[in-house]
Amino acid sequence: MTQIYDRVALIGLGLIASSMFWAMKRNGVAGHVAGYARSAETRDTARRIGLCDTVCDTAIEAVKDADLVVLAVPVGAMGQVAQEIGPHLKPGATLTDVGSVKKQVIEDVAPHVPDTVHFVPAHPLAGTEHSGPESGFATLFDNRWCLIVPSEGSDQGAVDQLGNYWKALGSHIDVMDPDHHDLVLAVTSHCPHLIAYTMVGVADDLRRVTDSEVIKYSAAGFRDFTRIAASDPTMWRDVFLTNKEATLEILGRFTEELFALQRAIRQGDGELLHDYFTRTRAIRRGIIEAGQDTAAPNFGRSR
Amino acid sequence: MTQIYDRVALIGLGLIASSMFWAMKRNGVAGHVAGYARSAETRDTARRIGLCDTVCDTAIEAVKDADLVVLAVPVGAMGQVAQEIGPHLKPGATLTDVGSVKKQVIEDVAPHVPDTVHFVPAHPLAGTEHSGPESGFATLFDNRWCLIVPSEGSDQGAVDQLGNYWKALGSHIDVMDPDHHDLVLAVTSHCPHLIAYTMVGVADDLRRVTDSEVIKYSAAGFRDFTRIAASDPTMWRDVFLTNKEATLEILGRFTEELFALQRAIRQGDGELLHDYFTRTRAIRRGIIEAGQDTAAPNFGRSR
Repeated sequence: MTQIYDRVALIGLGLIASSMFWAMKRNGVAGHVAGYARSAETRDTARRIGLCDTVCDTAIEAVKDADLVVLAVPVGAMGQVAQEIGPHLKPGATLTDVGSVKKQVIEDVAPHVPDTVHFVPAHPLAGTEHSGPESGFATLFDNRWCLIVPSEGSDQGAVDQLGNYWKALGSHIDVMDPDHHDLVLAVTSHCPHLIAYTMVGVADDLRRVTDSEVIKYSAAGFRDFTRIAASDPTMWRDVFLTNKEATLEILGRFTEELFALQRAIRQGDGELLHDYFTRTRAIRRGIIEAGQDTAAPNFGRSR
Repeated sequence: MTQIYDRVALIGLGLIASSMFWAMKRNGVAGHVAGYARSAETRDTARRIGLCDTVCDTAIEAVKDADLVVLAVPVGAMGQVAQEIGPHLKPGATLTDVGSVKKQVIEDVAPHVPDTVHFVPAHPLAGTEHSGPESGFATLFDNRWCLIVPSEGSDQGAVDQLGNYWKALGSHIDVMDPDHHDLVLAVTSHCPHLIAYTMVGVADDLRRVTDSEVIKYSAAGFRDFTRIAASDPTMWRDVFLTNKEATLEILGRFTEELFALQRAIRQGDGELLHDYFTRTRAIRRGIIEAGQDTAAPNFGRSR
């Protein structure tokens, strides 16, 4: 048992929040967890499966007396929720979030945070293609990174406590500034998702290759893309709308490189292709050595 | 025990051929398997790990008396190997291949096949990002598809026997014509691979996001891309050079769609993005229902 906060409130009960709840329970990280979701259906599901010690019908009720309040709603909804709960936050409490974009969230949320409350944005780098209150599981954050992105003037004690909280949920932690966070994530997560969505869309459009063939013969490569492209549409819409600048910059570089490879194919430049494909192998090796993935055959899947 | 051929020869001893060997041994699909690889190092490894009943020092020696000869070399090397072994194939034997491209392979190989030999091209849709004689395993083809792509005038008995052979290795089989095969594969495999290589290359180029950060914080999405982009460079170079037409066509459609999504991001058109991302989920569901992937959380990986 490693209790870090007495009372925690989860605002939003999707994949991340529900996984946080089960991870808190596993290690006794919080004394009491209150939860709130905007949809009555989600709240009913949460009550049915025992997600949260108390499920509240309003966000204001959920954050009452909470020592840690976690905003786990789509990035585009953070500002509005912060405005609603701001006046009801307990003095001395910490407000954090789990959004995939940090600059915009800080801009949207910070104005609504009272001076008596510590605002410490964060982003756990973990997920699956599933969403909703029933998709969470206790081990989601184990050995994954959680990036803590303190806003200007964040209290060091509050930052350290939030770091200890994420460590107690199983994560490694690191501190990063908002601009750099948004660029790193554009490269490692946001652009890959957009590209996967696009490729799956192309396959869907192509009438000569019928849907059933695309599905039936989906080989490694495309199969991975469809998994990525099955992620929550609302979450990803908000990510691209709020991390516009970095995403568009990386996409620009991507198309530039893709055109170079396309030209090499057209011109039959096998040496360029071979050199390029050899270089990308080294990055893969690094990821396996860093323990962020497994080298198991068949893409580590059971079949 | 389901013996389909008495003597089988594997030309090339990489991931596919070595997996074929272990799958043949598992189910007693062949009486005797001879193997050949161009590099002495690969032949030594094969002898050391017991890959093939006999490892031969020349391709000609390996195909002698074989009832089935499997070309399992990069697509760009098929023609040359066929030219070398053609005159030494046993009358009545079947010659097949496992190449990811079919039109070009048929063009390159067919002229070297004697009239007394049945040439039946095929393509097992299975793989991992690993390569070499030690990467094979017996279950690689289980529940995967193998596409049989008969060339003009292929003998029906030979086609049926090769189908039974792949079923004995664990695969489902289907028959397809070469043009359609190359288009379907451009969509489901070749373009996704090129795109993954490109995105990993972009990350590698971007000096502001240091290599270690890309590796350390590689989230779902990018991590899947690096796995795809770790595949054998020679094999993939040959795929793009020999399936040029279909690949370039699909890439053209891909960049067109990507530009549309890019414009939606720039203009803040959340509705277009949300609709697009919702549509792609259906394809994913279809793949899971078709049994070609698992719905396990965390991308089906052990961690």
